[in-house]
Amino acid sequence: MAKGRKISVVGAGAVGTAVAYAALIRQVANQISLYDIATEKVEAEAADLAHGSHFTGWPHVAGSSDIAVTDSSDIVVITAGAKQKPGQSRLELVKDNARILKSMLPKLVDASPEAVFILVTNPCDVLTMVAQRISGLPTNRVISSGTVLDSSRLRRLIADRARISTSSVHASIIGEHGDSEFPMWSVARIGAVPIADYRVNGNQVFPPDVLDDLAHQVMTSAYKVIAGKGATNFAIGLSASRICEAILRNEHSVQPVSSILHGQYGIKGVALSLPSVLGSNGVEQVLDTPLSDEEIVKLRASADAIQSSFDQIENEL
Amino acid sequence: MAKGRKISVVGAGAVGTAVAYAALIRQVANQISLYDIATEKVEAEAADLAHGSHFTGWPHVAGSSDIAVTDSSDIVVITAGAKQKPGQSRLELVKDNARILKSMLPKLVDASPEAVFILVTNPCDVLTMVAQRISGLPTNRVISSGTVLDSSRLRRLIADRARISTSSVHASIIGEHGDSEFPMWSVARIGAVPIADYRVNGNQVFPPDVLDDLAHQVMTSAYKVIAGKGATNFAIGLSASRICEAILRNEHSVQPVSSILHGQYGIKGVALSLPSVLGSNGVEQVLDTPLSDEEIVKLRASADAIQSSFDQIENEL
Amino acid sequence: MAKGRKISVVGAGAVGTAVAYAALIRQVANQISLYDIATEKVEAEAADLAHGSHFTGWPHVAGSSDIAVTDSSDIVVITAGAKQKPGQSRLELVKDNARILKSMLPKLVDASPEAVFILVTNPCDVLTMVAQRISGLPTNRVISSGTVLDSSRLRRLIADRARISTSSVHASIIGEHGDSEFPMWSVARIGAVPIADYRVNGNQVFPPDVLDDLAHQVMTSAYKVIAGKGATNFAIGLSASRICEAILRNEHSVQPVSSILHGQYGIKGVALSLPSVLGSNGVEQVLDTPLSDEEIVKLRASADAIQSSFDQIENEL
Amino acid sequence: MAKGRKISVVGAGAVGTAVAYAALIRQVANQISLYDIATEKVEAEAADLAHGSHFTGWPHVAGSSDIAVTDSSDIVVITAGAKQKPGQSRLELVKDNARILKSMLPKLVDASPEAVFILVTNPCDVLTMVAQRISGLPTNRVISSGTVLDSSRLRRLIADRARISTSSVHASIIGEHGDSEFPMWSVARIGAVPIADYRVNGNQVFPPDVLDDLAHQVMTSAYKVIAGKGATNFAIGLSASRICEAILRNEHSVQPVSSILHGQYGIKGVALSLPSVLGSNGVEQVLDTPLSDEEIVKLRASADAIQSSFDQIENEL
Repeated sequence: MAKGRKISVVGAGAVGTAVAYAALIRQVANQISLYDIATEKVEAEAADLAHGSHFTGWPHVAGSSDIAVTDSSDIVVITAGAKQKPGQSRLELVKDNARILKSMLPKLVDASPEAVFILVTNPCDVLTMVAQRISGLPTNRVISSGTVLDSSRLRRLIADRARISTSSVHASIIGEHGDSEFPMWSVARIGAVPIADYRVNGNQVFPPDVLDDLAHQVMTSAYKVIAGKGATNFAIGLSASRICEAILRNEHSVQPVSSILHGQYGIKGVALSLPSVLGSNGVEQVLDTPLSDEEIVKLRASADAIQSSFDQIENEL
Repeated sequence: MAKGRKISVVGAGAVGTAVAYAALIRQVANQISLYDIATEKVEAEAADLAHGSHFTGWPHVAGSSDIAVTDSSDIVVITAGAKQKPGQSRLELVKDNARILKSMLPKLVDASPEAVFILVTNPCDVLTMVAQRISGLPTNRVISSGTVLDSSRLRRLIADRARISTSSVHASIIGEHGDSEFPMWSVARIGAVPIADYRVNGNQVFPPDVLDDLAHQVMTSAYKVIAGKGATNFAIGLSASRICEAILRNEHSVQPVSSILHGQYGIKGVALSLPSVLGSNGVEQVLDTPLSDEEIVKLRASADAIQSSFDQIENEL
Repeated sequence: MAKGRKISVVGAGAVGTAVAYAALIRQVANQISLYDIATEKVEAEAADLAHGSHFTGWPHVAGSSDIAVTDSSDIVVITAGAKQKPGQSRLELVKDNARILKSMLPKLVDASPEAVFILVTNPCDVLTMVAQRISGLPTNRVISSGTVLDSSRLRRLIADRARISTSSVHASIIGEHGDSEFPMWSVARIGAVPIADYRVNGNQVFPPDVLDDLAHQVMTSAYKVIAGKGATNFAIGLSASRICEAILRNEHSVQPVSSILHGQYGIKGVALSLPSVLGSNGVEQVLDTPLSDEEIVKLRASADAIQSSFDQIENEL
Repeated sequence: MAKGRKISVVGAGAVGTAVAYAALIRQVANQISLYDIATEKVEAEAADLAHGSHFTGWPHVAGSSDIAVTDSSDIVVITAGAKQKPGQSRLELVKDNARILKSMLPKLVDASPEAVFILVTNPCDVLTMVAQRISGLPTNRVISSGTVLDSSRLRRLIADRARISTSSVHASIIGEHGDSEFPMWSVARIGAVPIADYRVNGNQVFPPDVLDDLAHQVMTSAYKVIAGKGATNFAIGLSASRICEAILRNEHSVQPVSSILHGQYGIKGVALSLPSVLGSNGVEQVLDTPLSDEEIVKLRASADAIQSSFDQIENEL
């Protein structure tokens, strides 16, 4: 009964099921498939989602440990992998997860040769490079959720302080989805007001120390959420589901996803997040956002961190 | 920033957070509050939800172990309680959860004296009776998700077999949300076709043995999902969120929620699920759906089971 | 920028633009094209729609008097034709509109050979037969909005009287979209309650004279709306847009659309409305809804009226 | 059946009905009321909307020539008035429409003393001043759709040229909703890229002459649409419906609505459009967007034009 647009989510853990649940409720596709090697788990998760699908109407949900459940997907969201433990750096995970990717990705590409692949597993930037190397797919079709989630967190913090809807807060985190990420403060806006100029009753609401504090809060918020609930899943579920929407609708909307760069800001061959145009072909374009000198320095440092992490595992691929 | 309709979800476990996530994505209210005694947990869950709220737009999310976070709610969804273990009957949970309710409900009613209270904690029928007794609230404002979820499961099974959208499958489970529940087969329809008359190429698609099997599958599906993933949360999250919608929109739509009956089918003072009209006042009306003699017998047996469970704990209230 | 699902609406009058507006707001497709021979008019209507598209997000709107604007549509909704005047019977329109169809349809089929064609122009049943004859397309792909709108009107009337949401009112008008149409009272339900059994405080809410009056109101409501505002457009806009959704989502939901029958109730080769399953292929199945003897007589009379209308113009095709 | 949020639309013409249709489909409120002095017309329009409401689910629609239909609204959208004719300047309409407002507004305020009033009738800025003077309401609760529509048109033009979603195009028209309006080019952005810096393959996509042309196109697009279809209604319907959403949801989102200024940029007592924060109280705040010197000169000229128009009719109020 499921002709039409199809999303497959690989990995039926807390993150993968949150992606599927959000995509089901937002009716992002006609078919949502969940794939995991743990048969009982993936079937139970898909059943639980399907039992609720009467209330959303139409996406059909399937789940299986047979990779054929992902056949002919338009988008494959990869959430499978070892999970970040409290205190563990994102980069430490890379070896384990690269190995998992190596065993699984070729089969997923065979099943859905035209799909856009979205890496959600961490560290997502390095794994995007790994996935592209393994698959040989064009770089616009192997991308990562990157700092879409971090940017959403930043917007929430700014919005709460300014008492303005996040839809009118324009601010992004760029670079690595990890410790070297940073906000593009130089272009952050509330409405059309530069964030540093935003005043209430004449008082600057976002002086430099507040900006530093917000950036720090974003960077540490994943750790805090993990400490409190053992994982982060809801916000990343919505982030990934939103990326899928933009692609399936061919929106050409701008989101800070991660993809391998081709010379922007002097960076080549490294995947990191920059405001990028999302459409049917995945990343249609990486925007040339004007950055301050300081921000360019930080971005290159972020690229170096990712590259060096990649270098350490490259010969295992 | 959060004037307007408000939902509070009590209990930040797998079910409560799924209710909140579904309500957030469906934009059911202007404010969604999560309350739990476990401070770090509830704050982490609310933060994770709030981090994703940029993608849904407008519901404001808050979470706290201070009951004041629920103040002035239009709806309070109660998911807190001990969880059903694999193999455990729903009725065995009742004592523990009645005790929790007794300690918590008076404060929740003080905080939101005009709210509709929706019991999701199991065994939800008995607990609805307990909650009404404790609170003294009118019976239309102390209700339970009842067999809304079971009915959704039944519709999914019928829909998959008939290859028809669940939106065109009209079938409900009634009675106890538990082992004595049963489908109202006598009025089940696909489109306007009685289910027993539904044929493809002249062949009856739902002969009696198939109907028995579907009823059995629904009854055991919670156990199967729990066996596979340790809990059920996504489908109940959508069910409860759908009930909240119907109430906040004053829809007057019909859903098989559970509420204390006042003589329907000869049943008085017992809470169980029957097709009921949901509006701003909670259960606006319980419909007089014509049942077969056999179904009335089953319904009364279901009422007896619930009543006898309530009797065992009544003197502790 | 507009890859993905595409709907074309033929005719930029009050009905065609309402279909496009509803489809835009409901985000039914990635691309909505408006085609009309009146160049300035169609460009102005498409511009007005496109100017509002920022608020809906993503469907791309185009309008042109060049039929190429409809290329590769998934669905073509035909609203072009002479308009029903106050007092004029629907059948009187048939000759004019058949002529328009004859000149236009072959080009539309050439442009979108895989599309489902939905006739909204009246008298829609006869024109569905005309369109199928002209195009030679399979009967499942040349359908009409039929009595979807009339059924929606009936549900609204029942809902208002019963004070129940239309979503819980199950009632349909079948037969000709015109003077010989009639409600399937024998299977009409409120929730699962047969409409004749629906009581409030013991009083029957829908006795036979009320049912007669409701049927009469539905039949005359188009004339009344036309008398008051010169046309009907909003409700048919939503009806057609809903049909498009069901097809693009491959929903397999049941709607009373009109399509050429193949022997149901002894009727062959005539297009009229019966509860039908809508999916990617248009009408996937016409349900065998059990009707009363009286209803079958009425249905055959309705078929005869349509057939005789078709007979009068058949030799001009 | 219609407790909860309520919108009333005054004027059942092309604009008023488009507002109601958009609000119905977007499910902005629980109740949508249409009020017009033409009894048959308003009842027919409301009936046509109500007949389609089954497909949207829950907003209840009513229409009447009795002003009581607007009682206790949360928002009153005023579209009644003489219509702009091709070639006629917006300011020429002011006397007629001020007279209509004078006769009608006090009754509307009596019926809904707590409502936010949104003027859509043109010339909307002057009429906002007129309405505030007549009603004595606080300036945050008497506002106008202003240049929300013009800004949407500008975003569409930029989006089409840049091949970027309007959701990622940040550009607004400010000042008078009329001939003296102008784009805030100094703060216009595509993603976070200043519009003048937006390049494809090294080529500036929006050089100064293109910007001038886009501004001209926006200013003349209403005239073009009116020439082609006799009115503009769809885009303004979505604009007004979007403003209602922001208010009912207490979004605190930024929209260029028109309200009476209190000293911003040296302008006092004149209503014009500037990026403003919309919430439950109407305009919660007018943002201090940094403008270029040239833009401030234009804004003051726009204010002078509106003030002088108001001065000509002030003694008639």
